[in-house]
Amino acid sequence: MASMAALFTKTPYPPQSLNKIANTHFAPTRKASLSLPFGRKTHRRLRVSSALIEPDGGKLVELLVEEPLRDLKKSEALSLPRIMLSKIDLQWVHVLSEGWASPLRGFMRESEFLQTLHFNALRLEDGSVVNMSVPIVLAIDDSQKHRIGESTQVALFDSENNPVAILKDIEIYKHPKEERIARTWGTNAPGLPYADEAITNAGNWLIGGELEVIAPIKYHDGLDRFRLSPIELREEFTRRNADAVFAFQLRNPVHNGHALLMTDTRRRLLEMGYKNPILLLHPLGGYTKADDVPLSWRMKQHEKVLEDGVLDPETTVVSIFPSPMHYAGPTEVQWHAKARINAGANFYIVGRDPAGMGHPVEKRDLYDADHGKKVLSMAPGLERLNILPFKVAAYDRTQGKMAFFDPSRPQDFLFISGTKMRMLAKNKENPPDGFMCPGGWKVLVDYYDSLVPESNDKVAEAVPA
Amino acid sequence: MASMAALFTKTPYPPQSLNKIANTHFAPTRKASLSLPFGRKTHRRLRVSSALIEPDGGKLVELLVEEPLRDLKKSEALSLPRIMLSKIDLQWVHVLSEGWASPLRGFMRESEFLQTLHFNALRLEDGSVVNMSVPIVLAIDDSQKHRIGESTQVALFDSENNPVAILKDIEIYKHPKEERIARTWGTNAPGLPYADEAITNAGNWLIGGELEVIAPIKYHDGLDRFRLSPIELREEFTRRNADAVFAFQLRNPVHNGHALLMTDTRRRLLEMGYKNPILLLHPLGGYTKADDVPLSWRMKQHEKVLEDGVLDPETTVVSIFPSPMHYAGPTEVQWHAKARINAGANFYIVGRDPAGMGHPVEKRDLYDADHGKKVLSMAPGLERLNILPFKVAAYDRTQGKMAFFDPSRPQDFLFISGTKMRMLAKNKENPPDGFMCPGGWKVLVDYYDSLVPESNDKVAEAVPA
Repeated sequence: MASMAALFTKTPYPPQSLNKIANTHFAPTRKASLSLPFGRKTHRRLRVSSALIEPDGGKLVELLVEEPLRDLKKSEALSLPRIMLSKIDLQWVHVLSEGWASPLRGFMRESEFLQTLHFNALRLEDGSVVNMSVPIVLAIDDSQKHRIGESTQVALFDSENNPVAILKDIEIYKHPKEERIARTWGTNAPGLPYADEAITNAGNWLIGGELEVIAPIKYHDGLDRFRLSPIELREEFTRRNADAVFAFQLRNPVHNGHALLMTDTRRRLLEMGYKNPILLLHPLGGYTKADDVPLSWRMKQHEKVLEDGVLDPETTVVSIFPSPMHYAGPTEVQWHAKARINAGANFYIVGRDPAGMGHPVEKRDLYDADHGKKVLSMAPGLERLNILPFKVAAYDRTQGKMAFFDPSRPQDFLFISGTKMRMLAKNKENPPDGFMCPGGWKVLVDYYDSLVPESNDKVAEAVPA
Repeated sequence: MASMAALFTKTPYPPQSLNKIANTHFAPTRKASLSLPFGRKTHRRLRVSSALIEPDGGKLVELLVEEPLRDLKKSEALSLPRIMLSKIDLQWVHVLSEGWASPLRGFMRESEFLQTLHFNALRLEDGSVVNMSVPIVLAIDDSQKHRIGESTQVALFDSENNPVAILKDIEIYKHPKEERIARTWGTNAPGLPYADEAITNAGNWLIGGELEVIAPIKYHDGLDRFRLSPIELREEFTRRNADAVFAFQLRNPVHNGHALLMTDTRRRLLEMGYKNPILLLHPLGGYTKADDVPLSWRMKQHEKVLEDGVLDPETTVVSIFPSPMHYAGPTEVQWHAKARINAGANFYIVGRDPAGMGHPVEKRDLYDADHGKKVLSMAPGLERLNILPFKVAAYDRTQGKMAFFDPSRPQDFLFISGTKMRMLAKNKENPPDGFMCPGGWKVLVDYYDSLVPESNDKVAEAVPA
């Protein structure tokens, strides 16, 4: 993964923690990045820095306990009623702790939950509106509720029984699962991956409150160094003198059509007069459904693609977005965009059927392929974000490479869907030359090879996104 | 019904059309009501008139063709592709034509439909936001779509094949029924009355566009005179020098608990400093489910209740709200409130579980009883409306009348639900004295008596609202 790290550190990759890299190589502390006296360059940095889009609510909300207080909070946690976090719960704690959901200060209270379900937005005290389309909630069951009793605080523990956070000034309210699912996904059909995983069998209560996270969330999977927080990303964009940041959310392997799109977007931004647009290539790192390619393999694939020089390291930042995936189409794409505002992106690339999937029961896509883009462009609280609709790229047989689809000669183009791509890789067949760099393709083949034979026989296939 | 008409006309009820009453007795034309030179009185009227809450979008949108052009439009309609309106479609044409849904100018286009489903609000061109929580859409099927072909206009015909309206500059888009239902009701459970009646078997396409309604919609059921448009209601409130208008939406018979609430609300408004708060008692007149008491019987019941002097004719306006009923709880209550802003109400009384019903499959209420009130108080575009939460009234055995529930002596109170009330009336039993005036109760008993025996054996019972 060294070469990929190099892409954003611009130094030989040192195998230490991200913090070390940040401090020594690319990300001076916040204060420093705004005040170091480097004459004209500093001046320019200041200007550019202030040009980064403001986070929602005006200020990034970090919910981490300051270093000197961590031990204290840890012992405090040990004395409180305990809630055991699932893997997905922990991912949400991570999301909240770093301010991706700013200005949320913890798991949602009922008023926030209801506004999210009904309006996909939260009204702040000053009357302004921020987008918030997916509920970020913590479910507890009857016995947990009983154990909490009259306590106003609870401690959140991970699956290894380590205290992770304290939830203060708590509010417990009913978990209307059917309604939550219907309003988030637009269907109650059985088989929605996130609902099956995290809602249907979850507790009948939700617990909201203010979160104090004892220490940065780490997964110790070799990928933590790619998990930059919104503040770290903003520092990196500032360091690079970005005057525009365009985010590309992905949860699939990168093929040359994606690369074409990202390169072309930068070209368009330069044409618009921006001097240094930076790409945030931002694979989703939280929960994904069983038939998606797992994060570790995707990161290997991205690494190969980047090694190949398909994207320019000078203008690309690769990082992992810690959110779990809902597959909630037009509702979820708003969350994907909103979180990237908080990370400093003012342009967001949106494709066909973002965050979509096949209908779990009927033989069709769950969402209209155009709704995501349309909903995103009208969403409350996202007015400040520039939406860049995805141009359709396909394999141009006449050029032997991925190119933007030309409707005047449709017969020349071959559409290779995600489903098709996965089937080819699974069967160790090769896609047409120029579809994906050979190194990246090999990672995919290796991944399907690594699956045990029984599941290899029938790899479930999702609709491409 | 004479006495009820008298309540708002303040003259002996003449059996002519409402227009006649309006012109001769209480509702001078709009211009006149604002400019007639009556010295101080006029001055006061102007002041009060300007105090009425502004309609959404700043201006009431009436979609009626002017009288001199009606014949022309009628013949124009005859030359266009035809869409036959269902009873509910016609009710929506009525709603749109009078501006209840201002600033909507016709059946929703896809951008309005999507904003309604996802955000319960529409963003206007000037950036302001109005509430809009239920889709007002017109469904057509494949063959109708085919027949429309390339035409940019269609004509809407009623079930007797009379041209009702022209829909111009049309837009046809997919009708995502499952998603529409899930996002509007928060469930896809089978058995939602409106969905069964108007969505599930409707066409696979929606057609939006600008509506030109050829003549005011009339039902010729003896109740048209109670169907005041928002403009007529505003004129009436102005004529009465209202400085506050509080709306009470209902679709059930009025009992003394309701009356107590309305009287008490006026008292509170007077205490707040208003000089002349007027009650808009506003029964819903469009589609209701089979086990609700039909409009004609409810109006008879309201008449008796009002004859009894339970409400003050001086300060009460009775009128019919032409909208169909969705039974979509927290989503629909926003529509009920928003439409009343357009009719001039700046206070809205909201009760327990507004627009709610029993879950069609599970043995529970479909919505949390408090969600309607909470969602309403946070809804985008309704910030200008004052929400008055319903105090719980119950039968106080110690006083032998309906009174506000006193939690310090719960044993003294008897809760008579809508279900209970209907069961009693159906079985010709009497409620406790003081629950409802005897004349009103008799109407209910007569209604159930009028039902044919087979359905009388098992009158379906809904959860009270």
